[in-house]
This record gives sequence, structure tokens and C-alpha cells, in this order.
Amino acid sequence: MESEQRQASLTEEVIFCDTDCGGVVSNIAYLRFIEKARCLLFHQLGMPLAGMSRSGVFPTVVRTEIDYLKPARLGDRIRVVATVASIEKVRISCDFELTSDEAGPMRVFARATQRVVLVKMPEGKPLRPPEEWNF
Amino acid sequence: MESEQRQASLTEEVIFCDTDCGGVVSNIAYLRFIEKARCLLFHQLGMPLAGMSRSGVFPTVVRTEIDYLKPARLGDRIRVVATVASIEKVRISCDFELTSDEAGPMRVFARATQRVVLVKMPEGKPLRPPEEWNF
Amino acid sequence: MESEQRQASLTEEVIFCDTDCGGVVSNIAYLRFIEKARCLLFHQLGMPLAGMSRSGVFPTVVRTEIDYLKPARLGDRIRVVATVASIEKVRISCDFELTSDEAGPMRVFARATQRVVLVKMPEGKPLRPPEEWNF
Amino acid sequence: MESEQRQASLTEEVIFCDTDCGGVVSNIAYLRFIEKARCLLFHQLGMPLAGMSRSGVFPTVVRTEIDYLKPARLGDRIRVVATVASIEKVRISCDFELTSDEAGPMRVFARATQRVVLVKMPEGKPLRPPEEWNF
Repeated sequence: MESEQRQASLTEEVIFCDTDCGGVVSNIAYLRFIEKARCLLFHQLGMPLAGMSRSGVFPTVVRTEIDYLKPARLGDRIRVVATVASIEKVRISCDFELTSDEAGPMRVFARATQRVVLVKMPEGKPLRPPEEWNF
Repeated sequence: MESEQRQASLTEEVIFCDTDCGGVVSNIAYLRFIEKARCLLFHQLGMPLAGMSRSGVFPTVVRTEIDYLKPARLGDRIRVVATVASIEKVRISCDFELTSDEAGPMRVFARATQRVVLVKMPEGKPLRPPEEWNF
Repeated sequence: MESEQRQASLTEEVIFCDTDCGGVVSNIAYLRFIEKARCLLFHQLGMPLAGMSRSGVFPTVVRTEIDYLKPARLGDRIRVVATVASIEKVRISCDFELTSDEAGPMRVFARATQRVVLVKMPEGKPLRPPEEWNF
Repeated sequence: MESEQRQASLTEEVIFCDTDCGGVVSNIAYLRFIEKARCLLFHQLGMPLAGMSRSGVFPTVVRTEIDYLKPARLGDRIRVVATVASIEKVRISCDFELTSDEAGPMRVFARATQRVVLVKMPEGKPLRPPEEWNF
């Protein structure tokens, strides 16, 4: 796998439904930003969303770790960088960094790691990632 | 259908992920409260959620109208009353009233109507509701 | 107001958290797509999200009507066009059309109208839209 | 702190908006179940949601770890048990277990840990938990 395929990024603006009454982005909303970046990452790896229903193979999150570092607020632009960190047997480890995409000092809003397994549905059978994903 | 089957109610407390940075419940979160009450209503009508995957028949929302009347806030207890208002051919019209479930003057947070059709999946075929639902 | 300011559009790809176990986009998820387009529309009208916390003036949805017409699925690209349809006293009426943004015959997934009021918080006072918004 | 105060539990039925097109509960929806149990836990500890806006003190999640173990499906009843595991300076560590609340062999859907800090808003100042919470 080429290194440029192993990383995907996007920028999202924080809208109302991402925030809560504390005035900052909800801890849950960050997981939606991460999911969007993860879908883009797997698209680059050759698994576009539109083909998944046909193939029945879905990248399934089996573990999430996330540290919330600085609060993001309404209108903040959040850049999400998703990277394949390692592949071990069926487990694909993905790292995510969420930072401010604006002029001024960069703020790191959150860092996360997700362990993902390709699962063949409806059997629920874990699959080994394609050989060419290894690096 | 007995009149007591045609109505279902529940109470939900507003938690962080239901609110936004305006300090009030997000217009979108009310739709989750309504969905919960709608699922309970169809359960009472003989369609529990756990059986739907087997039967492949899903109550599907084809239209929503909702008026947001008073803002609800973190910790407010919202009572949702769901009622089958009418059935016409395949269309089931459901009314929802969301009010404060607390001491003091009753506040009406929102009123909504949803048009629901029973759909047989994966064909997407609309089904007539059971004869005994008519009233 | 120039006619080009009165309309905003964006395209979103349907990801996992937008869908439900019926295999299609959840009726609730469409409201998030609509909120994103509405925020962009008000940005064009001179009310960027990042400034709202300072001004304390928030565009607040007081009514939603939405018709779900065709199901959208994982990986579908949904184009949302948001338009200011009319302004009457404090009420701003916005129309939304959600269609497929892909080759092939255009599918209309949903059409919606929201009534929006500019509200000065924390007083909750409705404000008249700026004179120049009229057309 | 009495041991019975250190634990809170509730049961939620999986509804449509909790699931995704893989047919199972979305990894993100579990965080809503956990938030509901966490709010109940802090209520028992003397911090009801309705009082937080007045006090300006919010329990804020600074880290989440969650393992997704077995898939939950539409109509499953999920019991969430939330426990204060430890308190160290300003950090409150909470454990969550999400299991099936039904007849038959118990399934463990997910286990999670969240690190929570009491934060005084709007200053964003971390506070030490009350002395009597220690055990």
C-alpha cells in the first residue's frame, strides 16, 4: 500500500446539532466526524461505501479510544486526519487527529484510535485485509 | 381497535446530547423522542420491534410536521403522548404531543403529526394495516 | 437581497450513522443534512456560525414539514438545495430539496420547509430580519 | 460515599435511530446509552441535570475507551450499569457495562470506561470532586 493511500483527511464545520448546552461540541458528535473520515479512508483503500451493500463486507469498529483535549465550538472548522497505523491479522488500527483548520495557533481538539475489522455479513465472519494493504 | 391501544406515552429526561449550544433541546432531538413513542405505539398495536426483522414489515415515516412551541432544557422531563389519529387506505396518521412532566404549569414543548406506511422490505411494498386497527 | 444569496447548496455522502436497520437513511438523519444547508444559507445572508455566539442572535426553527419521497442508501450522494422562499414579519420560510447528485435519472429523496425566526438569546426575543433581506 | 450511590443502572430498548444499515446498533449510539447512565449516576451523587445550568458545574468527559463485543439489534433491551471506579485528584473514572436484559444467556454488548472531570463553566476550571465522594 502506498503511503498516500493510508491517510485521508476532511474538514467539517461545527453546526448546531454537533454542540450541547455546555456550549461546546458534544463528546458523541466527534465520533460522527471520525466516522466520516474513516469512510473516506476505506474508500481510498478500495472499499467505497456504495459497494459495501453489494459485497456484504463492512469495516466494523470493535474498539474506540478517544481523548478530548480542547473544546471546539459552533462555527469552528475541524480538520480530521485519519491514518492506517498498523494491520495485525484481522485487526486494522486507525488513528485520528482532529485539529483546528483556521488561521492562528493550531488547537488539537481530540485524538482517537479505532480498531476495525472487516466483517462479512450476515454471517458476521471476520476477514483478513487484502495482502496489498500491508506495509 | 380499543381506544386504549391507540395511544402510548412515555417520559424522557433531557440529557446533554439532546441539547445544543443555544441552551435548549435541538429541533432534531425531538424527533428521537417521537420515534421512541411511535415504536411503543406500534408495539401496542401488535408490532413489537423485536419481531420486525423477522416479518420484514416496518412502519415507515413518509411525512413529518412538527411545531416547536416552547424550548425544553437540560433536565426537563418531557412526556410524549402518541395517538393513532386516523387510518386511510395504507396511510396511518399519528399525532404527538410533547409536554412538561413536572409540577407547575404545563408547558407544551412541541406538537407533531407523522404519516406512517407499513412497508414490506426488501420489496418496498406498502401494505394495508390490519382490518382490526380501524375504528 | 440578490437572488444568488437566497440559495445555498451542498452535497453530502450517506455514511453509516445516517442509515438505520431498514437499510435506508433514517428520517431523522435528513434533518441533519437540512441543518447543514440552513447554516450555509444563513452564512450567505451575513450570519456566519462563528459570529452567532458573540451576537447572541440565533436562527431558530419553529416549524418543520418534510416529505420523504424515495429512500437514500449508504454511499448515495445527496445534494441539498436550501432557498429563502418568503419573509413575513419575523418569519423566514426556507425550502429544501434533497436529490441524488449522481449520474442517472435524478431521484428526489425528500422535500422540506422550515419556518425560522431570528431569536436574541438569552432573552428569547424574536427579531425582524434585516430590511435588505426582503425581495 | 455509600457503595449503592456509586452505581446506577437503566434499561433501553434499541429503536430504529440506534441502528445502522449493517443491521446492528451503531458504535455511536452506544455512547448515547452511556451518557444517559452517566447522567443518572451523577444525579445519584447529588448532581441532578436540572441544577447544572444554575451551578455552572458540568461533568465533562475527557476520555472514552469502549470495546464493542457482541452486536445488539432492533428491539434488544440493553441494560447499562454505570459505576464510579476510582477518583484521583480531579479525575473521576466511570465504568460501564452494557448487557442484554432478557431471558436466555446474558450477552455483553460493550464495556466502556470514561474519565470525567467536573468543570466550572464558562471559565473551564476543573474542580475537585466533593470530599464525601471518596471511598
